[in-house]
Amino acid sequence: MSANPLTDLSRLCVHTITTKPWTIEEAAIHYSKMGIGGITVWRDTLAGRYIRHTGQMLRDAGLTIVSLCRGGFFPNADATGRQEAIDDNRRAIEEAAELGAPLIVLVCGADPRQPLTESRRQIQDGIMTVLPQAEAAGVKLAIEPLHPMYADNRSAINTLAQANDMAEAINSPWVGVAVDVYHLWWDPALEQEIARCGRNGNLYAFHMCDWKTPTADFLLDRGLMGEGCINVPQIRHWVEATGFNGFNEVEIFSTTHWAKDQHVFLEEIKQAYLHHS
Amino acid sequence: MSANPLTDLSRLCVHTITTKPWTIEEAAIHYSKMGIGGITVWRDTLAGRYIRHTGQMLRDAGLTIVSLCRGGFFPNADATGRQEAIDDNRRAIEEAAELGAPLIVLVCGADPRQPLTESRRQIQDGIMTVLPQAEAAGVKLAIEPLHPMYADNRSAINTLAQANDMAEAINSPWVGVAVDVYHLWWDPALEQEIARCGRNGNLYAFHMCDWKTPTADFLLDRGLMGEGCINVPQIRHWVEATGFNGFNEVEIFSTTHWAKDQHVFLEEIKQAYLHHS
Repeated sequence: MSANPLTDLSRLCVHTITTKPWTIEEAAIHYSKMGIGGITVWRDTLAGRYIRHTGQMLRDAGLTIVSLCRGGFFPNADATGRQEAIDDNRRAIEEAAELGAPLIVLVCGADPRQPLTESRRQIQDGIMTVLPQAEAAGVKLAIEPLHPMYADNRSAINTLAQANDMAEAINSPWVGVAVDVYHLWWDPALEQEIARCGRNGNLYAFHMCDWKTPTADFLLDRGLMGEGCINVPQIRHWVEATGFNGFNEVEIFSTTHWAKDQHVFLEEIKQAYLHHS
Repeated sequence: MSANPLTDLSRLCVHTITTKPWTIEEAAIHYSKMGIGGITVWRDTLAGRYIRHTGQMLRDAGLTIVSLCRGGFFPNADATGRQEAIDDNRRAIEEAAELGAPLIVLVCGADPRQPLTESRRQIQDGIMTVLPQAEAAGVKLAIEPLHPMYADNRSAINTLAQANDMAEAINSPWVGVAVDVYHLWWDPALEQEIARCGRNGNLYAFHMCDWKTPTADFLLDRGLMGEGCINVPQIRHWVEATGFNGFNEVEIFSTTHWAKDQHVFLEEIKQAYLHHS
């Protein structure tokens, strides 16, 4: 069974990284003009801006600010590195509060110099350390499980089961999970783990794109929905079956798509969203 | 807890693909001269050979033939493609019997044009179809779970739990599992699934190499043990704790290592095996 067709763009959210060649001001104008409902802001686009003004600019353009990307990268074999990560996450929480973003997505991190079990402990410790500040700022945190091909240096949390386990262990209304089809599509336990995530109130965000065959690069060759082998409508159906009614976020890193006129690409995103998501 | 140190090469098996620039005759001479106990033969090295003679040549060199790589690739959205895969697996069984290899490793396959659930059904059907011939030939089949980054077109079996499930469902003394650290190191359930695999008599083969950071290529940038972040001695300990006393197979695809003088590389394999495995 698949999800109901998407007939408008009100629940579409585009990540600024998806249209990387555009400034955040350009993204705001063009997303808004197309009728896209939401924007997720990557921190690099805020450099040199007065963040409160940027947040107001986005709201004035009619966009809902869905989340700030990204915090995390807690594990480090060196204590100094772990402290730097804590400091950076505290800055991210400040930035999210100034921007008016209700959520920070966490790419949790991993350090190839230490066992995954140690990295996982440091992730949970890191989240617990910054949690009081997040709560005080009214900013939620979403653990994003990353594809196992990133287990060496980007995330020691590689399945939705692991993310669910950690969110349930932390057991705070300020910590949940971001589900991204690119990272999780292969998992035979995906349907049941999405249901579990929703049942426990932890399904905070839903990201979509596609997996191309062949994939030319570990990071920068994601596909637009319909370009690859992921059954996005089916996964969206599982997500919506939990009661999730938040945004469908298009997050694509692609040197191929970034090389295009971004107006052309945004139109392709719209079509892919309406017909292949 | 880690495994006992490896002090000699009697249980070391090298895959012919690991020293790809060498012919099988060169590989046999040089592996044997170093005291390496076993060889796993990739089918491409048999082209143009009378396979029975090649098998005898390997035994005469003092090498144990551990397995033939590889069968599998059963799933295909087209029935013709599925039949071609069956035919090819029947040829592989004949080749293994002629060579004197007791085992074929299966890279099970996947077709991005169809759901993973369908590919998994076709894998199990394919194995069941060729199983009587394998049994008649005295050749075992090992399901090798592949890393989730290969779920699109190389294998729909991506965790040891899935491979265990399928081997147990088939429930034949001729079908088991190959455990490869490269594909499985990230899995939080690895220790318990290795124990399960051994307990059920399904642990047929153990492959080792390492995961480099960064990894430059999806296929051809595997590391030598010690070059990456995989705790190979720990995984070997888990494997040996099941009672496994077969060969430790070094299987490395690497344009970097293939570009070297293969005598130098073989010495590096020896050192990595004795000190980082």
